Parts: sequence; C-alpha cells; structure tokens
Amino acid sequence: MTSIGIYGSRGRMGQAIVAELGELGARHAGGADAEDDPAIVAAAADVLVDFSSPAALDAHLTAARAAHTPIVIGTTGLTEAQHALIDAAAADIAVLQTGNTSLGVTLLAQLVREAAARLDTDWDIEIVEMHHRHKVDAPSGTALLLGAAAADGRGATLADAAVHDRAGVTGARAEGTIGFASLRGGSVTGDHSVIFAGEGERIELTHRADSRAIFARGAVRAALWLATQPPGRYEMRQVLGL
Amino acid sequence: MTSIGIYGSRGRMGQAIVAELGELGARHAGGADAEDDPAIVAAAADVLVDFSSPAALDAHLTAARAAHTPIVIGTTGLTEAQHALIDAAAADIAVLQTGNTSLGVTLLAQLVREAAARLDTDWDIEIVEMHHRHKVDAPSGTALLLGAAAADGRGATLADAAVHDRAGVTGARAEGTIGFASLRGGSVTGDHSVIFAGEGERIELTHRADSRAIFARGAVRAALWLATQPPGRYEMRQVLGL
Amino acid sequence: MTSIGIYGSRGRMGQAIVAELGELGARHAGGADAEDDPAIVAAAADVLVDFSSPAALDAHLTAARAAHTPIVIGTTGLTEAQHALIDAAAADIAVLQTGNTSLGVTLLAQLVREAAARLDTDWDIEIVEMHHRHKVDAPSGTALLLGAAAADGRGATLADAAVHDRAGVTGARAEGTIGFASLRGGSVTGDHSVIFAGEGERIELTHRADSRAIFARGAVRAALWLATQPPGRYEMRQVLGL
Amino acid sequence: MTSIGIYGSRGRMGQAIVAELGELGARHAGGADAEDDPAIVAAAADVLVDFSSPAALDAHLTAARAAHTPIVIGTTGLTEAQHALIDAAAADIAVLQTGNTSLGVTLLAQLVREAAARLDTDWDIEIVEMHHRHKVDAPSGTALLLGAAAADGRGATLADAAVHDRAGVTGARAEGTIGFASLRGGSVTGDHSVIFAGEGERIELTHRADSRAIFARGAVRAALWLATQPPGRYEMRQVLGL
Repeated sequence: MTSIGIYGSRGRMGQAIVAELGELGARHAGGADAEDDPAIVAAAADVLVDFSSPAALDAHLTAARAAHTPIVIGTTGLTEAQHALIDAAAADIAVLQTGNTSLGVTLLAQLVREAAARLDTDWDIEIVEMHHRHKVDAPSGTALLLGAAAADGRGATLADAAVHDRAGVTGARAEGTIGFASLRGGSVTGDHSVIFAGEGERIELTHRADSRAIFARGAVRAALWLATQPPGRYEMRQVLGL
Repeated sequence: MTSIGIYGSRGRMGQAIVAELGELGARHAGGADAEDDPAIVAAAADVLVDFSSPAALDAHLTAARAAHTPIVIGTTGLTEAQHALIDAAAADIAVLQTGNTSLGVTLLAQLVREAAARLDTDWDIEIVEMHHRHKVDAPSGTALLLGAAAADGRGATLADAAVHDRAGVTGARAEGTIGFASLRGGSVTGDHSVIFAGEGERIELTHRADSRAIFARGAVRAALWLATQPPGRYEMRQVLGL
Repeated sequence: MTSIGIYGSRGRMGQAIVAELGELGARHAGGADAEDDPAIVAAAADVLVDFSSPAALDAHLTAARAAHTPIVIGTTGLTEAQHALIDAAAADIAVLQTGNTSLGVTLLAQLVREAAARLDTDWDIEIVEMHHRHKVDAPSGTALLLGAAAADGRGATLADAAVHDRAGVTGARAEGTIGFASLRGGSVTGDHSVIFAGEGERIELTHRADSRAIFARGAVRAALWLATQPPGRYEMRQVLGL
Repeated sequence: MTSIGIYGSRGRMGQAIVAELGELGARHAGGADAEDDPAIVAAAADVLVDFSSPAALDAHLTAARAAHTPIVIGTTGLTEAQHALIDAAAADIAVLQTGNTSLGVTLLAQLVREAAARLDTDWDIEIVEMHHRHKVDAPSGTALLLGAAAADGRGATLADAAVHDRAGVTGARAEGTIGFASLRGGSVTGDHSVIFAGEGERIELTHRADSRAIFARGAVRAALWLATQPPGRYEMRQVLGL
C-alpha cells in the first residue's frame, strides 16, 4: 500500500485528500504533527502531495529532493523562480505541478488542445469561468490552464494571445486572441467553458465541478501514478495516458 | 394604416424595419430620398423610428418635435446632453428610447427586476453577454439595460453597483455589486445571462437572439403603440403592458 | 423559539433539516424515538415537517389534524385521494404541500408563471431537467411544478398541455403544448430549465441546485411561516410573499 | 474549377449550396432543368451533392455510379437497403454519406469519441438537442451521429446503448447507456450537447448552429475533397483529416 505524505494536511484540501486515501488504496504517511518538519514527512512517504501555499513550497521541494521522494504540487500562483526550482528538482525526482487535479478538467484541457489544433484562427476562442464569492483572484488557475492548452494547440503562447480586460471601447476583436472572463458569486465550486466561435456556429467545451472531492481524488490518483515514475517534470494528462 | 418614418432606413437595421412593416400592418412614410431632410420625413409620418447614429440624433429629434410626431429611438451610446434633449422633447411629443427593442429582452428585464427585488443581497448578481467579433464596445447596451433593471429591483443605482473589471488579485466579491463580463467571437447575434448566485443554488435568466429581425419587429411594434400616446418619455416595457 | 416536529427525521432530508434548525432560530420538537408515534410528535410541536414517504403520509396528516398542528409536506408522488385528504385537513389546520422547498425554485416558478402569462402561445415552452443517476422517476416533481406554473400563467392546465415523449416520427410541434425532457447522470443534485422559444429568440429560465441544504433551509423557513397561519392550504410562494 | 452537380438544387439546402459555390472556388455543373434527368447531372459534374430525399436517392446513386462520379449524400432517414446500396456503389465510386456536414459538428463528434474512450462507464452519457418547431422527427440525425461517436469511443454500439424514453417510473439509470432527449420550439437552427456526468463533475460538449449556411459550406468542402478520392465509403471526419 502506497504511503502518501501530505503537506497542508490540516487545510481544507489536505483533509479532503486524507478522506480519499483509503478508498483509493493508499495510506497517510504521517499525522499532522509530522508536518512541522518537512524532512520527516518526505522521508516517511513513498510520494508527497503539496496543497499548502506558495510561501511553503520551497522548503517542501527541498525536503522532497533531499529524500528522493516524488511530489505532486497542487499549489498555484507560483513565481518564475519557483518554476525554475521545480525544473531543477525534476533532475532528481519525479515532480508533477498542476493548477487542477480533476480528471474531468485534465481531459477537457486535452479536448481543448485538439479542437484548437484543428480549427483555423478565424474561430475565436473565449474562456469564461465562475467561482464562489470568496475567491480572491481572477482568472482561475484552471482557466489559465485551459487557455494554455488552447494556445498550445494553435502553436502560440498564452502570454501573447490572452486578453483579460474587455470594457469600454475595445475595437473589433483581434484574430488569434484568447479572451478571459471571470464571474464570482454564491458558493459555486467551479465552472469553466471554452468557447470556439466560428462563422454561423459555436463549439462550447464545459466542465462543472459539483464537489471539491474531485480534486482530492485526482491528486491521490496522480500521486499513486507518480510514485513509480523516474525523475522528470510531469503533467496531469500523463497520469491519464492522454 | 399607420405611416412610419425611418431615420437610417438605408442602414442594416433600417432595412430590416422596412422589411417588417407590411406584416405588422404599417407602411413606410417615405423613401430613402426623403431622408436628406429630417423635417420632410417627420411631417409625412404618424410616428418615427431612429436607428441612425448618435451624431444624427439631435437633428432628428428637433424635426420630430417641430412636426409633433412621436419618435422611437433605438440609438445607444448617447451623451447626458442628448438624454436631457430627449427629456425636453418629451414635453411636446411621445418619445421612447431603448437599448433593445426585442420583446424577449424587454420581458427578461422585467423578470430580472422582479427577481432582484425578491432576493436578498446575499444573492450575488453577475451578467455575462456574448456578441460577434465585430462589436467594438463592451458591455453591450443590453447588458447595461439588464444591469439597470437588477439595480432598480434592489433600490440601488447601476453606477454604484457595477463592477466591470475582474482580473488579477481582486479580493473577495463585495456584497451588493453587479458584475459584468463580455465575450466576443464569431457571428453571435447576442446572448445575455443574468445570474443570481446564492448559497447552494443559482438562478440564471438568459436571452438568446438568433436573428436581428426580432429587433426590427419590436421597433415597429413600439412605433405602432407610441403613435397613439400623449407626450412623455416611455420605455419598452410599457409597450408590452409590463 | 419555534418547536419543529419532523416526520422522517432519520432520513437524509430529515437529518439535513435537523442540521439547519439552530441557525434559523428553531428547535427540534423531539428525537427520533418519538417518531414511532405520530401523535406524540404532533402534540409536542408548534409545526410539523414531513419528508417521510407517501405511504406514511395519511397517519402523519391524521395526527397533525388531531393535534391542531400545522404541517409542511415535502413528500411527492401523492395520489388523488391523498390530495383530497390534504384539502380536508386544511379545514382545520394550515397545510403546505410542495414538490420543492427551495427559495430559488419557488421564485423561478413565479417568474415562469409571469413569462407564460405575457408571451403568446407562439412562444413554445420546453422544460428540461437533470438529476443524479439514482433517481427512479421522471420528470422530476420540480419539473412538473414548473410546468404547472407555466400552464397556470397561460390559463391552461398542465395535464392537457404536457408532452412527455418525443421519439420517432412526432410530426411538427403542436402550439400550446409544454414539452418535458429528463436527463440522468452522475451526482447532479438538480438542474431545471424552462425554455420559451419564439421566432428568432429564446428566453431560458434556469435553476441549479448545488447542495441539498437549500431544500432543508427552505423547509424550515416554510415551517416557521406556517406555524402562525390560520387553517387553509398554502403554497411555497406565499411563504416568500410572491 | 471543380464542377459540382446538385440533386435537390431547388430545395432550401440546395439553394444554400449554390450560394456558397463561388466563394469556395467551385461552380455549379448544371441548372435546375438538368435535374429532371439524374444521368445528365452526373455526367456533367466532377462530383455530386445530394440533399434531395430518401425516395430519390436510389436513382441518384445509380446515375452517379454509372457516370463514375463521386457523391456526397446529406440525406438522412435511409433504410438498411439504401445503406447496402451505398456500400455497393462504393466499390466503384467515392461516396460520403453523413447526417451533418458542418465542420463544427464533425469536430465535436471526434471530441465526443475521444472523451468516451478515455472515461470509464461510470461517467454517464446523455445527449440533448433542440430544433425548431417544424422538425418532425426525434432525436435529430446529428444527435444520433454524436451518440454513435460516443458508443464507438467505448467500443459499444449505439443500438444497444441508446435510451430514448424516460418518463414515469424508470428505475435507476443503467450503467453504459446513452440517453437522448429532444426539445422542439421556435426557430432554433440546431443545438446539441453531449454530457458526460461523473461523480462530482460533468463535462459538456456543445455545438450551436446559428445559420444553415454552415451545412452548405461543409457540403461543398466535402465535395471538393471527395472529387479526388478513389472509390470507397467515406466519412466527414476524413474530410477534416481527423
């Protein structure tokens, strides 16, 4: 039975992960007390999952690398320096960093990539997401992940294509751009739609999360897969064989 | 048979209105040639419809007032001064100015007003619209019209409640605000959704325009109704008895 | 503090109601043991809530009537005889029977009634709902409730207007009918859309339930309101002053 | 310039195809008069397009085969015998028969196939479509096409998996089935959604047709591609290289 160490196990997501372990054939490598020392958690586990915070990531990554323990990172909002640190760690251990661990979103991103690759740029791409009123940033990490998949499918980069503001006199839409819109309200777990709008027709690819348990299940599934991989940097779609 | 004078009859919307006249029991007061002189059009018609441009509005309104001919104004993007001019004209003639002449949107706005009046402000209101790639401004006039109906239902004003940008670190959503999001792409005629998001549930009130003919039919219907009204400033919902 | 007696308090919905009582300023009239005798529950409570089963309804209603205790009935799938029994009981006590206790659905039904009243019958009405894979009947009670509101708005009866099957060679759609479609899958709590489809435009009025807690909260809110009403048969919309 | 012969050129779809020819670099092989003799049309054209009727198909197919002219067949509702006739003709000429010639639907079907292949059967598949009130059959040919793609992705056959009626006491949903629901109303050109509903999350893949011109453009595009293919039976996705 694979032993999973969890950074942030006292948080909402950490607790949800702990709750899923048994059903998925895994066990928790250590209790909350062990978290006070990242090295102890890393040494005790076959694989690590980190849903703590960007501020804590560096220490967790260092501990994982030192202990040669693979790590799934679900934290978002990382700096360029942190991504470089992940790349460096990937020389020694298997690392998977993702903005969304759900099976559905991972598949959707692949469908978005494929659709973007097949459709000419006269099909305009728009991404709209809705989350609960407490979310403090926009667009969501998942919306950006889907946008990156769309840009990738077109052989472009999201940084060049993304349009985040559309208010006032904007002029006509520029071909090849990818627009983002964020809605906030109520207790919505997370809805995302990628719209491909052509002349006379539209394709809309949507994911609706009804429960946060899907992220916990996906994280455990990713950890079980990553535990047996050689050093390198991985993505969620590889977990699903996409 | 009511005689309808059309300012902007050579434009796309003007032509659509001309095409609807016969079926709705009206006739065109004058050909395109008459348009060169707004006064001639105003004198020949029982009621006027203006879908020309903000720049041309003042002359059309002056002609309507001089001829004592009621006027439906479908032009949007008017200045404060132009709204004051409309108010002044309404002392002498019946005037109806609106951002959307469709029956469906007019009814939807009424439903939005009622829902907003019934729900507490812990139901967050978000408005999302999508239009074709050629549209040069955002949000659409119809989105603003729906937002004004929502604010009105709550006893608030849209200027105070509206949030037009949501990108980056925004913080949690402020209670009582009304968020707007605009999507652009393809050839979409116009879709609008007003979302009321509460704890554990959502109400979504949506209008989808499949054809621009709905705006022409609604404009003619409004003109036929306005032709018999006393001086004053009117709204689309009065045409429908809402 | 109002004392609420719950028939079916050991069931999923009953437990959800118990969980909401404190926050809404109510208290549970008795523990699960008391349920073995409906008369004891009815005598101890200021108002009753029944989410048990159609089979148990008659005994609960008899007990409520004998104790002169108002009762909210959330059970659906009742027979004509049971509805007659409810009408008879309403001579002595306040009774509210409903297929959906959520605030959002109650408001939506009112919006549907109003839209149906305002739109001519050349606007076709279609109702589509989706629920989890375990639901054993179709359409949902809430879809029928929304259909009844639409028919009522038109001055028709649902039994005459409803079309439940549409497969094979159906012929063109008959004016004035109300179509139903049911989707089943996954863990969906309950989504309902009422679509008004006119020439060139559509209005869609949608409710999405993200959590079953909304039904419990609404039931408690209905009970608190019903506790102070004179004998009679009531509906959810009266609870909201609609 | 490829010469395209059109069976049914006087019909609505035939006229739409004629209107698209010039822009797509093709020309009409013959006027409406030529249609009185299918053999003349077939002999004059590089490739044929048939949007006439099932009753006329046999004669058109025979003419195409005799003249060794490839043919795109957009007629639906064919009998088993007619499909066998198409298979036989495919020994001599290139034949492409499809329920939907739009680029968007063709791509969507491929995305549906891939999603169905990747997701376990505990993700329930539901297909819902909406068309205008004049449509006389249900589900739409396109809904069946999407259902066949979903079944194919799972290694199943649609005939075994399809569930067309869901009214009354249905019992819980059976795993592996594919449900269909059809809505009718107004002037809707055609909307289709394929929903994959899992535990706690949903993926929805939607196509919205705003204009029938998309079917004409797709048919011409298919004809231009088919004109250069060797004998055989083809599908739309091959036109797009999917």
